[in-house]
Amino acid sequence: MQATSLSLDVPLLLEQIRTLGAVGADPVAGGRTRIALSDAEKAGRDLVGRWMRELQLDVRVDRIGNLFGILHAATEEGDRRPLMIGSHIDTVCNAGALDGCYGVLAGLAVARAYRTAGAQPARAIVVGAFTNEEGVRYQPDMMGSLVYAGGLAVDTALDTVGTDGTRLGDELVRIGYAGDMEPGSIVPHEYLELHIEQGPVLEAEGQLIGVVENLQGISWQKLTVHGTANHAGTTPTRLRHDAGYVAAAIIAFLREQVVGAAPETTLATTGSLSFEPDVINVIPRKATFTVDLRDPDEGRLQAAEKRLADFLADIAEREGVKIEAERLVRFEPVVFDAGLADEIEASAQRLGFTHRRMTSGAGHDAQMIARIAPSAMIFVPSRSGISHNPREHTDDEQLAQGAQVLLDVVQRRLAAD
Amino acid sequence: MQATSLSLDVPLLLEQIRTLGAVGADPVAGGRTRIALSDAEKAGRDLVGRWMRELQLDVRVDRIGNLFGILHAATEEGDRRPLMIGSHIDTVCNAGALDGCYGVLAGLAVARAYRTAGAQPARAIVVGAFTNEEGVRYQPDMMGSLVYAGGLAVDTALDTVGTDGTRLGDELVRIGYAGDMEPGSIVPHEYLELHIEQGPVLEAEGQLIGVVENLQGISWQKLTVHGTANHAGTTPTRLRHDAGYVAAAIIAFLREQVVGAAPETTLATTGSLSFEPDVINVIPRKATFTVDLRDPDEGRLQAAEKRLADFLADIAEREGVKIEAERLVRFEPVVFDAGLADEIEASAQRLGFTHRRMTSGAGHDAQMIARIAPSAMIFVPSRSGISHNPREHTDDEQLAQGAQVLLDVVQRRLAAD
Repeated sequence: MQATSLSLDVPLLLEQIRTLGAVGADPVAGGRTRIALSDAEKAGRDLVGRWMRELQLDVRVDRIGNLFGILHAATEEGDRRPLMIGSHIDTVCNAGALDGCYGVLAGLAVARAYRTAGAQPARAIVVGAFTNEEGVRYQPDMMGSLVYAGGLAVDTALDTVGTDGTRLGDELVRIGYAGDMEPGSIVPHEYLELHIEQGPVLEAEGQLIGVVENLQGISWQKLTVHGTANHAGTTPTRLRHDAGYVAAAIIAFLREQVVGAAPETTLATTGSLSFEPDVINVIPRKATFTVDLRDPDEGRLQAAEKRLADFLADIAEREGVKIEAERLVRFEPVVFDAGLADEIEASAQRLGFTHRRMTSGAGHDAQMIARIAPSAMIFVPSRSGISHNPREHTDDEQLAQGAQVLLDVVQRRLAAD
Repeated sequence: MQATSLSLDVPLLLEQIRTLGAVGADPVAGGRTRIALSDAEKAGRDLVGRWMRELQLDVRVDRIGNLFGILHAATEEGDRRPLMIGSHIDTVCNAGALDGCYGVLAGLAVARAYRTAGAQPARAIVVGAFTNEEGVRYQPDMMGSLVYAGGLAVDTALDTVGTDGTRLGDELVRIGYAGDMEPGSIVPHEYLELHIEQGPVLEAEGQLIGVVENLQGISWQKLTVHGTANHAGTTPTRLRHDAGYVAAAIIAFLREQVVGAAPETTLATTGSLSFEPDVINVIPRKATFTVDLRDPDEGRLQAAEKRLADFLADIAEREGVKIEAERLVRFEPVVFDAGLADEIEASAQRLGFTHRRMTSGAGHDAQMIARIAPSAMIFVPSRSGISHNPREHTDDEQLAQGAQVLLDVVQRRLAAD
């Protein structure tokens, strides 16, 4: 089979993105809200399942609700594990239409290209939509792929209680997506995920295709500085134990000394912060804030954590405050499959698309599936880097070009067997 | 008349402090709440007015509700403007019993010492309780003394609308304290105010009496940093416009570069801060925070403001953010009367009390009355510097000793005429 013999139905792909994007739409606040296992998300699942059946895919649902459409191979003989293309269709509140959905629907477009050509692939192609990637109602996020990869027992996941008090397993039954397939029972030969970047790098550099070769490690901490509240006008500086100043000094240190001294890959962010009592003329008694550290290299991530910890000890001593550090999240970096990354780069090159190697800053189902199969990701630009927002946007042409790279890589990988 | 001829009724002073402190008490949250012109504060006024009448003082209420008790002089001939002793009896929410009340009730104790000895002073002694010093419900604070000193037109003050939508003048009528005396019509010859320090300096240095020779200038600003919200994991540091980091860098700069480079008299505090959207993995779009700068020297205060303004311009340029600065409050420093400060120091010395010259970090009615009469203040220690809190505390013995200094100074000043 020639790598150029199949062609995408781009208008239909774009139409399906818009049609799925209308499910759960919020005409007032903008965007759409399809929280995992809600009624709106069930409607999204029903739609995607119907499109799978229209392509005569073999539709399966596993016990954690992951939804798969299988385009069977010409032969099931020998080691013919399938190539899987996946992502998710659940959303955050008032989300864009592309995060996750683009990858699932591009997978269907690839299957459609085979169907339209009357071609059967050398290996089965499985298009997957994983349950609860966003983790809005049920923690942890990326749950469906985590369970699928064996990282979380399915019964434990089903017993998860949501922020609204519901049990995940009950909600799965309620919406009719408690399948009987055992998660992980179809082990992919390789896994590909096409996704919007959700960051500004491709746009800023004028590149079209991101060849995602790794995914950052993430370290989330909540820091609480306990100082002493006192009158802002009557307390000499030398007698202060100012929790607010200490928090500010830590945030400045992270940016100026930790990030500033590290390679550009190390990121530090304080997104959330509060003071108590939060009164203009009272020195803060308490400052509570988050630290989000990321790096694609585990050694560098640990070095950043260490520099922060050392600084906390120093400043606590110097300012006479107590600092508590609570670890919220810690993921080691994921390195994607080098052969798949090379293949993606080669496809982009061949198709004449600008491209760059890059790191995924966000978490994706691919990082979970990477535990059980060679995996990689393809990114397309996100305008202004905006995601998780109604203003999330990628140009139609870019969406089409990303799907072309996906189709090209799939054909190459299946031809290569 | 000998300076030592009069004696204080210390037990009665302490009892009156406790009795007034029980008015508006909150047995659950602790402390007492007598917001200006509330029912609880009316009850406090009624009590103080009754104690004034028991001392056969001539009770007057002016149009802004300032309450005065006049102990008339032996003779009203010539320029016999009175010596005024004042403070306030309104409180913040869940306040201590001493802030303000101590000064008013010590004034009554001084008048009582004259009454008990059957002595008439060479000048009238006026004991004043100024309206709305705390400014909780009606802005500005120190309103009664400001109006009294001619700094705010009484009709404007009466039209002030409170945080609860009430008009101050209506509330004054409602509680029966809309007097007919024109504010400022009794111009003091000199003004004395005895107050708890509300700061930790006297306690930290083991001194009993604070000879308050000046009062800091205050500069309050609200700063708003407008940056760009973006994903914490996907946005390279060089593409960030992180409003949270910029706020932290400003707060750290104030402490490390402005305060750190200035004499110890310059103070900087950020008491209130908030981020938007305030989410762990989103770079803050907006940071809003307060800056409280103080210095007893106007030139140094302006220098601190200038260093801050220069830094704001630099960091806004460097980080690609916009910074708005809104001036909330600006008071120039007040220098109290040197002769009165010398007199207070001499009294403390004579009575064998440890003492130090100091600056008032908080605002007081004395700073307003200083516009129309030589004024000074006497401080006693505040345990741990705590005030505006149920835990506000000064030892009874220290309260008694502070009142002794007040009485001694009053006698000396009246004897000096």
